[in-house]
Amino acid sequence: MDQFLKKAKEASAVFATIDTKLKNSILLQMADALESHVEVIIDANKIDLGYAYDQSLSEAMIDRLILDQKRVVAMAESLRQIAALKEPVGRILEGWTVESGLQIQKVTIPIGVIGIIYESRPNVTSDTAALCFKSSNVCVLKGGKEAQHSNSAIAKVLQEVLIHNDLPIEIISLLPDASREGVSKLIKQDQYVDLIIPRGGEGLIRYVSENATVPVVKHDKGLCHTYIDKDADLEKALNVCINAKCRRTGICGAMETLLVHEDIAQTILPTLKEAFGAYQTELRGCVKTQELIETSVANEKDFDTEYLDNILSIKVVVDETEAINHVKRFGSGHSDAIITENYGVAERFLNSVDSACVYLNASTQFTDGGEFGFGAEVGISTNKLHARGPMGINELTTYKYKVYGNGHTRA
Amino acid sequence: MDQFLKKAKEASAVFATIDTKLKNSILLQMADALESHVEVIIDANKIDLGYAYDQSLSEAMIDRLILDQKRVVAMAESLRQIAALKEPVGRILEGWTVESGLQIQKVTIPIGVIGIIYESRPNVTSDTAALCFKSSNVCVLKGGKEAQHSNSAIAKVLQEVLIHNDLPIEIISLLPDASREGVSKLIKQDQYVDLIIPRGGEGLIRYVSENATVPVVKHDKGLCHTYIDKDADLEKALNVCINAKCRRTGICGAMETLLVHEDIAQTILPTLKEAFGAYQTELRGCVKTQELIETSVANEKDFDTEYLDNILSIKVVVDETEAINHVKRFGSGHSDAIITENYGVAERFLNSVDSACVYLNASTQFTDGGEFGFGAEVGISTNKLHARGPMGINELTTYKYKVYGNGHTRA
Repeated sequence: MDQFLKKAKEASAVFATIDTKLKNSILLQMADALESHVEVIIDANKIDLGYAYDQSLSEAMIDRLILDQKRVVAMAESLRQIAALKEPVGRILEGWTVESGLQIQKVTIPIGVIGIIYESRPNVTSDTAALCFKSSNVCVLKGGKEAQHSNSAIAKVLQEVLIHNDLPIEIISLLPDASREGVSKLIKQDQYVDLIIPRGGEGLIRYVSENATVPVVKHDKGLCHTYIDKDADLEKALNVCINAKCRRTGICGAMETLLVHEDIAQTILPTLKEAFGAYQTELRGCVKTQELIETSVANEKDFDTEYLDNILSIKVVVDETEAINHVKRFGSGHSDAIITENYGVAERFLNSVDSACVYLNASTQFTDGGEFGFGAEVGISTNKLHARGPMGINELTTYKYKVYGNGHTRA
Repeated sequence: MDQFLKKAKEASAVFATIDTKLKNSILLQMADALESHVEVIIDANKIDLGYAYDQSLSEAMIDRLILDQKRVVAMAESLRQIAALKEPVGRILEGWTVESGLQIQKVTIPIGVIGIIYESRPNVTSDTAALCFKSSNVCVLKGGKEAQHSNSAIAKVLQEVLIHNDLPIEIISLLPDASREGVSKLIKQDQYVDLIIPRGGEGLIRYVSENATVPVVKHDKGLCHTYIDKDADLEKALNVCINAKCRRTGICGAMETLLVHEDIAQTILPTLKEAFGAYQTELRGCVKTQELIETSVANEKDFDTEYLDNILSIKVVVDETEAINHVKRFGSGHSDAIITENYGVAERFLNSVDSACVYLNASTQFTDGGEFGFGAEVGISTNKLHARGPMGINELTTYKYKVYGNGHTRA
């Protein structure tokens, strides 16, 4: 493992010799290579699917795992989109001249070696590899065991393009020891690894956070709220809430709890119940909610649960202060929204709620790299530092200061 | 400890109710309070000094510890300077409109609760407290044991100003349990603490990095290099090198190793030896260096040592590639410089060396918040993520996205 990571670290120096044009050309070659290896990839995927059926994995998991021609072509297309993104390295974030006359540039640079731990979907392998490559980072990928043959086949196709371009294959590699021990070693190799990004269940995230000595940017849960203020436009409230809950129920940006101002509850809750009824959403309400509409019971545990399912907790609150405090207590700092036409209340909510993304009159499901205009995303960071919310290629860079003098000495 | 940190976390919400004007007024009140409590502070300091003499601490340590009227006034002046800095919270870093029509603002926010672990100088207590306060962060301070009475007295003066303004004293507090166990608990309290900044010796930094589950921005060692290229201007090289080594030898930005291109070594090394002679700098040279000037021996261990003393390692290299590789192998990613008039060589060095601050024709001792125009600094970060190099109040903020819609739903 040490030897492997040492090589990965050394490989990161190669990026100094690859210009933007060559990087993009290689990404396009990789896209073509995925398409011309569709059969090899699908054959490998069939092995994974065989195991998946043997072990009776859930239908949802198997659906995430399946690769067909269309999905492989979509992976290739995604690489072409990443190639088309603006160069993330070498952006001058700021530049200024100081009193001594020194000229300072704050410039983006790659992070170095990034370990990414993820589950299920094999397309994450090519997407993540391409995002790291585009941002001049070496990636060490550790995918889900259930997708290991698919991931190996995809990585091999990408590595062959690296070889064809005389580049070290360590630039894109799978963690050789994919066991828990392998992960445990990876997250402690400060001298070789610069960042760990875990994407997955709470157990994995907790394990990595508690044991890593390498910095971690985690992709954790989203317990997202929408608060309907008394000055909400009812139609906007209705549309936004249905979208935030029902567009997709299994993503981290889906609304889990609806907070409703008591002055508007009587008007809007029956309408909402009807609308959610059309989506078969199970509603769980607080005591006040149940006085107004028929729902099952929402207790403290419900308010603390990320359902990732077609279930919604509802709580009636006296004002935005109670709403803000509820979000502070139960929220996960991912995405929270307020629906109101009142400027003061809106700004108070947006400024007081300390989540990565706070929305006014919009669905929390917009928390997504594509929707934010980032072109592609590594995921949604729930970290407070380095990267928050949708994490695109710019968030795969850090910075250094280039300081230009002309014989300057400090007094 | 739990109860204490819980209160600290709760106190951070208070900043939502304090506007910039009030924050600055409180900082000015704190400055005045320090000046009107000079005697109390000096009396407390005398207790610490008594212990220091009893334990025969080094003269350098005692000098760092001593507070007199002039030093307390300087502390107050520093608070006034921090009050005069631009508000770091609520800066819109970027703003754009996406395809869906949503308007996105990337806005700076406080980090939350910051634990700062430091040594010796009591003025760090007031400086750090003020920097955190200015950036709307709660700070939990853990100073050196040798300065505990001084730090308590200073913190008490600042807390009285908080009380006078009806603010919770937890905004600025000393860690109640200052033992190793206390620190050990602090760095694992993810639910209450958002960031740990350790400033101190290697042992402390390693302990915190290895054991913290809270994110860490470390203030580590500086093993800084200057490379004199064959196309260097000799006068600039001489001035910059003397300054980088001799201006102050005990700071992390001081040059520890000088790399010299072999084509220029014969010309410049004798001149450098004479110049360093005037400063009584001990020179330790590689074999090639010793063929040209008389020095003691520099071995691998020397090149790997941060002397923090009036000693300089010298190595003759064949070109900038060897210089870059030497910096990569032995450097600490703090500050490194090249002296050259050659544009291509300069850019190659500046781009290849992956340190927080890379200098062209300037002294590495410029790595300092004041010199960078930040007004005041928390320290020099040797992290690769979040904050690199001089860390000012802007680096004590993170960001969130405020997203403005008008009933927007995701397709």
